[in-house]
Amino acid sequence: MTYRIDCLQYANWSEKIFRQMREGGVDAVHVTIAYHEMFRETVLNFERWNRWFEQFPDLIMKGQWASDIDIAKANGRTAIFFGFQNPSPIEDDIGLVEILHTLGARFMQLSYNNQSLLATGCYEAEDPGLTRMGREVISEMNRVGLVVDMSHSADRSTIEAAEQSTRPIAITHANLHSWQPALRNKRDDVVRAVTENGGMMGFSLYPHHLKDKSACSVESFCAMVADACDRFGVDHFGIGSDLCQDQPDSVVEWMRTGRWTKGVDFGEGSADAPGFPPQPDWFRDNRDFGNIEAGLRAKGFDEADIAKLMGGNWYRFFAENFTPPA
Amino acid sequence: MTYRIDCLQYANWSEKIFRQMREGGVDAVHVTIAYHEMFRETVLNFERWNRWFEQFPDLIMKGQWASDIDIAKANGRTAIFFGFQNPSPIEDDIGLVEILHTLGARFMQLSYNNQSLLATGCYEAEDPGLTRMGREVISEMNRVGLVVDMSHSADRSTIEAAEQSTRPIAITHANLHSWQPALRNKRDDVVRAVTENGGMMGFSLYPHHLKDKSACSVESFCAMVADACDRFGVDHFGIGSDLCQDQPDSVVEWMRTGRWTKGVDFGEGSADAPGFPPQPDWFRDNRDFGNIEAGLRAKGFDEADIAKLMGGNWYRFFAENFTPPA
Repeated sequence: MTYRIDCLQYANWSEKIFRQMREGGVDAVHVTIAYHEMFRETVLNFERWNRWFEQFPDLIMKGQWASDIDIAKANGRTAIFFGFQNPSPIEDDIGLVEILHTLGARFMQLSYNNQSLLATGCYEAEDPGLTRMGREVISEMNRVGLVVDMSHSADRSTIEAAEQSTRPIAITHANLHSWQPALRNKRDDVVRAVTENGGMMGFSLYPHHLKDKSACSVESFCAMVADACDRFGVDHFGIGSDLCQDQPDSVVEWMRTGRWTKGVDFGEGSADAPGFPPQPDWFRDNRDFGNIEAGLRAKGFDEADIAKLMGGNWYRFFAENFTPPA
Repeated sequence: MTYRIDCLQYANWSEKIFRQMREGGVDAVHVTIAYHEMFRETVLNFERWNRWFEQFPDLIMKGQWASDIDIAKANGRTAIFFGFQNPSPIEDDIGLVEILHTLGARFMQLSYNNQSLLATGCYEAEDPGLTRMGREVISEMNRVGLVVDMSHSADRSTIEAAEQSTRPIAITHANLHSWQPALRNKRDDVVRAVTENGGMMGFSLYPHHLKDKSACSVESFCAMVADACDRFGVDHFGIGSDLCQDQPDSVVEWMRTGRWTKGVDFGEGSADAPGFPPQPDWFRDNRDFGNIEAGLRAKGFDEADIAKLMGGNWYRFFAENFTPPA
C-alpha cells in the first residue's frame, strides 16, 4: 500500500479544495485548526469541520488514527487530521491536552514565532528553552498521544523538546536552513536532534521556505530532499506543504499578529510583500503532488523511497504516535 | 451475561465510593457531570473524571459504548458513562451536541425543573412544549447518539419529546406518580409515551421519590416495579438510583438554584428539611443492589426478568442508542 499524505495545510476550505485533494490522490492531510485561538474558539473550529464532514461525506472524513487513512482510501476520500500551530487552545490548563486529543487533535506546536507558556518561538531574540509548564505538557502529550510539533519554535527549545519527549516529535513543515537560510528553516543540529530521536520533518512548499521563493524549481527542491535523506536518513522525511490556498491577506495577518500586538508584523513577508506569495508553478495546490513524485524519480530516488517520502513515513509515524504508548 | 447498571448517580466521588461500586458488583454507572454548568465548566468536570480514571485504573474506566461495560466487567472495573441534567453545557450552540458526545456525553436532559432553551421543566406553572431550538437539538442528538433524558421535564414537553425523537428517549431516574404522587414522579400518560416509543425509565431510590420517603420498604418499592412492568412492559425499566452519596447540603442548593435565583428554592425538600434526606436502610449505597435483586425475587420476578431490570435492559438501550443510527 502506498500513501500520499500532506502533514500541513491551512487553506480557506471549500468543496473545490476537497475535490482537488481527491484529484491529487491525497489520502490524508493534517490541517491547522488553531493559530491564536483559545479553547472555546478552537472548539468552534472543530464544530466547523464537523459540519464539513456532514456536508461532504463522499470527499472527506475525520481522521483519528492511521487506520482511518485506509478507511478513507478504501472509499476514495481524504482523511483530515487536526493540529494547532500554537498551544493557545490549552490556555493555562494541562487538563485540556487530553480533552483536545479526545476531540481529535493530533499535533500541537509548543510555540508559534513568539514565546509561549511552554517554549520559545523562532522570532524571539532569546531562547531560554522549555518552560516548567512546557516539560509537564510534553509529558502529558506523550501520555495521551498528542504529537509535539516544533515547526515555529526556536532552536534550543526544539532540541530540548526532542530530548525531553519520551516519544518522537515532529517538525511538520520546514526545509533545510543549509539550502535556504530562512528563519523558519531548520539548522542541521535541530534536524539531527529531531530525527535521531525517531522524529519526522515535513518539507514545506511555502515560497518563503524555498530557495528562490516562488521561482524555486522542482529540481532544486528535490535536490534538497536528497541531501536531507543522505545526511539524516530517508525514514525521517515527508511532505508538509504549508499550503495556504485561497486565503485572503487578512488571514496571514491573523497568523502573524493574532491579538499579541496592535502593530504590524510581517513575519516572513515584508512591507513591500505583506500577503501570501504565489506558489511555484509546479505546486499550485493539492492536484500537484504528482509533480513532486516525478521530481523525486528524476532525482534518482527508487520507488520504495519515493513511497516513504510521499506518505509511507507519515503513515508509520501516525500509527506509532497518536495513541497512548503501548 | 448479566449486568448491574445504575443509570443515575451524582455522588461526591471518592476512592471509597469507587470501591463500594466494586463491592456491589456494579458494572456501569451513568454519572451526572453537569447541572447548571456551562460548556467550559462542564469540560472541567470531564477533566476531573480523566484524572480519576488515571488515578484509579483498577476500579473505574471511561464508558463510551455498551461494549465498554464488557471490557470493564472482564477485569473487575465499573464503566462510568457521562450525562447532563440540563442542557446548559450546549449553551446556545447546537454544534456543541456533537462536541460533547465526542467527549463522552451520552445522556442530556432537555430541562431541569425550570424552562430551558429546549423544553419546560417540571416545576414551571405552564408547559408550552418543545421550543424551536428543542426540536432542532433533538434531531442533532438523534444523529450523533446523545440520548434525550426527560427526568426533570414537564409532562407535555416529555410526551412531545418522545414523539419528536426518531430514537427512543429515557427518563433515567423517577418512579410512578400513581405510587407516590411526587412532582418528579411520572404520570401514566408520560410513562406510556416514553415506553411505547421504545424508551426506558430508571427507578429512583431518592427518598423524595419513594412512598413513605426514607421509611419506604423494599417490598413496597418492588410492588411498584411489578405494577410498572405489568402495565408498560418489563423491557422498559431499570434502575436509576439518583444516589447523591456524601454530598454536602451546598450541593443540593446548587442543584436546585444554580445561578437562576438569588433566593432559596427547596425543590423536593422544604424549609424544615432543606438537605439530602437519609436513604432507606435497604439501599444505603452501591453495596446494596443485592437487596433490590432479592426484593424482586421475593416479589415473584423470574431470573430472566430480574436480569433485565438490574441491567440487561439498560445494556440493550446503551447498545442501540449511543452511536449514530445504523
